[in-house]
Amino acid sequence: MVQEELLGQVSISGVTITPVAFTDPPLLNAVGVHEPYALRAVVQVHTDAGISGLGETYGDAGHLQRLQVAAEAVTGADVFNINLLRQRVAAALARDTVQGGHGMSGMVTGSSTADRVLSPFDVAALDIQGKLLGRPVSDLLGGAVRESVPFSGYLFYKWAGHPGHDEDSWGAAVDPDGVVRQARRMVDEYGFSALKLKAGVFHPDQEIAAMEALREEFPDLPLRIDPNAAWSVETSIRVGHALDGVLEYLEDPTPGIEGMAQVRQAVSMPLATNMCVVSFADVPPAVAAGAVDVILSDHHFWGGLRRSQALAGITETFGLGLSMHSNSHLGISLAAMVHLAAATPNLDYACDTHWPWKDPDEDVVLPGALRFTDGAVPVPTAPGLGVELDQDGLEKLHQQYLECGLRGRDDTGYMQRINPEYELRSPRW
Amino acid sequence: MVQEELLGQVSISGVTITPVAFTDPPLLNAVGVHEPYALRAVVQVHTDAGISGLGETYGDAGHLQRLQVAAEAVTGADVFNINLLRQRVAAALARDTVQGGHGMSGMVTGSSTADRVLSPFDVAALDIQGKLLGRPVSDLLGGAVRESVPFSGYLFYKWAGHPGHDEDSWGAAVDPDGVVRQARRMVDEYGFSALKLKAGVFHPDQEIAAMEALREEFPDLPLRIDPNAAWSVETSIRVGHALDGVLEYLEDPTPGIEGMAQVRQAVSMPLATNMCVVSFADVPPAVAAGAVDVILSDHHFWGGLRRSQALAGITETFGLGLSMHSNSHLGISLAAMVHLAAATPNLDYACDTHWPWKDPDEDVVLPGALRFTDGAVPVPTAPGLGVELDQDGLEKLHQQYLECGLRGRDDTGYMQRINPEYELRSPRW
Repeated sequence: MVQEELLGQVSISGVTITPVAFTDPPLLNAVGVHEPYALRAVVQVHTDAGISGLGETYGDAGHLQRLQVAAEAVTGADVFNINLLRQRVAAALARDTVQGGHGMSGMVTGSSTADRVLSPFDVAALDIQGKLLGRPVSDLLGGAVRESVPFSGYLFYKWAGHPGHDEDSWGAAVDPDGVVRQARRMVDEYGFSALKLKAGVFHPDQEIAAMEALREEFPDLPLRIDPNAAWSVETSIRVGHALDGVLEYLEDPTPGIEGMAQVRQAVSMPLATNMCVVSFADVPPAVAAGAVDVILSDHHFWGGLRRSQALAGITETFGLGLSMHSNSHLGISLAAMVHLAAATPNLDYACDTHWPWKDPDEDVVLPGALRFTDGAVPVPTAPGLGVELDQDGLEKLHQQYLECGLRGRDDTGYMQRINPEYELRSPRW
Repeated sequence: MVQEELLGQVSISGVTITPVAFTDPPLLNAVGVHEPYALRAVVQVHTDAGISGLGETYGDAGHLQRLQVAAEAVTGADVFNINLLRQRVAAALARDTVQGGHGMSGMVTGSSTADRVLSPFDVAALDIQGKLLGRPVSDLLGGAVRESVPFSGYLFYKWAGHPGHDEDSWGAAVDPDGVVRQARRMVDEYGFSALKLKAGVFHPDQEIAAMEALREEFPDLPLRIDPNAAWSVETSIRVGHALDGVLEYLEDPTPGIEGMAQVRQAVSMPLATNMCVVSFADVPPAVAAGAVDVILSDHHFWGGLRRSQALAGITETFGLGLSMHSNSHLGISLAAMVHLAAATPNLDYACDTHWPWKDPDEDVVLPGALRFTDGAVPVPTAPGLGVELDQDGLEKLHQQYLECGLRGRDDTGYMQRINPEYELRSPRW
């Protein structure tokens, strides 16, 4: 098993970028509602050693164009030289004029374009490195400090079904009772040990009531609420006081570093963010302002797994907490999130995941490698990410992409087609 | 060459710690003078896969005791799990009552004990990982962004020889002419493209004159001066003004974050440090105070190569420069410094090294792997660190350790034995 000779350069010989669409329930948020399909892109990086690696990222049209630019830039590079991949991607994108395509429906627009585009290549390169070495990606990140990674149950207000379609199996959740019912099923099925409510949808008083109902139903579970900056500073402080002693942390109550800093002075619980600190450039002003206590990392916009570890070093050094953000995603992303979280000693909170909202029959990886036990995902121990591409699943979801007609995420536009009077407002309350 | 099956755990089966001593010239600094021998410890980490890895660290008695504690703690651990090594070392040292042994003669005492002790185990583990994979350590750190690593010529005031011994080949340097003569030889022999003077030895006016003489002799080379905090804030500002336009950066003119911040407000050149920011805990107060512009990293006290990369992420994020500090060292350390610097895109300054002060015939690695060309060391491309233990050299330097009688670094005590009136003062001027 031991390499006694030098392994030569393992060059990227090509990249296959496949946009896919998977069904998504009508999940409500501060900017609208999830469309019937969520878009992703599967990035397969091929090498002249015959080994390929997997990455997963956003599927919006603008992002796909940038991925193609990056794919050409990294071809020929050594998969062990992620620093070089980053330099090449950044240089290629510096000449890029593509607009839009952030993949997060206008909620996170300040992330670094180079880091967002680099991410799937970083993940795929580490997948290849792990396969070449015969070790899991977590080892390449410094080694797993936990055998499984805990996730929080991600609760959403939602309609019973998409307009014009049948009710989905989760049914409606438009009031505290509906939220508790949804949480009960999620906890029973997955064993989650923490719960987060995506809020900013209804009047804050109803959302406070929902959190209080969750507290009553689940007296021992850490609870979080995330209104995606839908509240003014004043409203945020009011909610913070109302939920004093109820919340593990309060996530992005209000827009911007300055507003968050004002809220933080006035409430007792930690403030978390994946909106006002979304790139390395945001860190110094946030630290200077004392704006946040917890940063929700996300390797999809923090430049991949190695760059996310740099973020972890920063939060540890500056005494900040570290948690993990999620968008709608498939199995490649879940595997990458699990390896990263496993190898990050100071990732002390249960991570977010949209996983329960995905149809179990729709994915691009073969089943079996990823499973939830007591709300946590055991860290894959097979070489690389430990997941294998499901060619049939990829083809099915690509066909779905071609046929669904969606080319970008637009929660607001979808909501406005359903309710023409809907307006985007931040803060809304 | 490709691993198609899972490589199982590669466990640490034992650790060999060998203290060594190598001859060192009478180099003067702010706390005294180098003794006739410099002490180091060579750490060999052995695994059940039959592969061993190398680390190099301080050789002071207290440090050797802690290394032994750490060696027992890491035995049985997987060499791929550096996070686990760190946890085990920190836990074992939390029960440690050993005093002293920082290895830096009282000049750097605030570094993290756990990071200082972890360092050679981190380096050795990466050496083993690279050998198992057949790739250089720089690849495990994200990939080399430069083929060779530039170093600065490290000038010292010095006596002609140790008292009671013959003059060494460098001769005396106790005035500007002597410093320039030394610099000329160093540049001619090694091709250094930057020069640094260890100062804090003579009256600041003489040291200013030395820098001006260097500027005249080498009009195009970046110049640095490092008095090891021998100056008051007032003196630092006066020197800073006198050397305006002469210095690339001014290193540790005065003690402490607060004093450095005062100097920084008053001088035009960047301030660098390896004294007031020597651990992750020092970073937030230094950033808040705006005390420094450049941090000199040193994997020997920043917790090894992976932790030093975390520091690089911090300096990049906070807009700080990054350079590299050196103590008297052997070839294992040089190899580790080169791999780290090669894989750190934002390490933009030529690194420090004491290398020219070492007798070329004294080392613990076989010759050939490390060489200087145009002031830079080409990054080894062989698996792991790319250096091989010289068993005869190790034995010779261990015997020298046993016979020399030194058990800790004590520049001040040695100076006081020569000049009983010598007093330690900080700041001195």
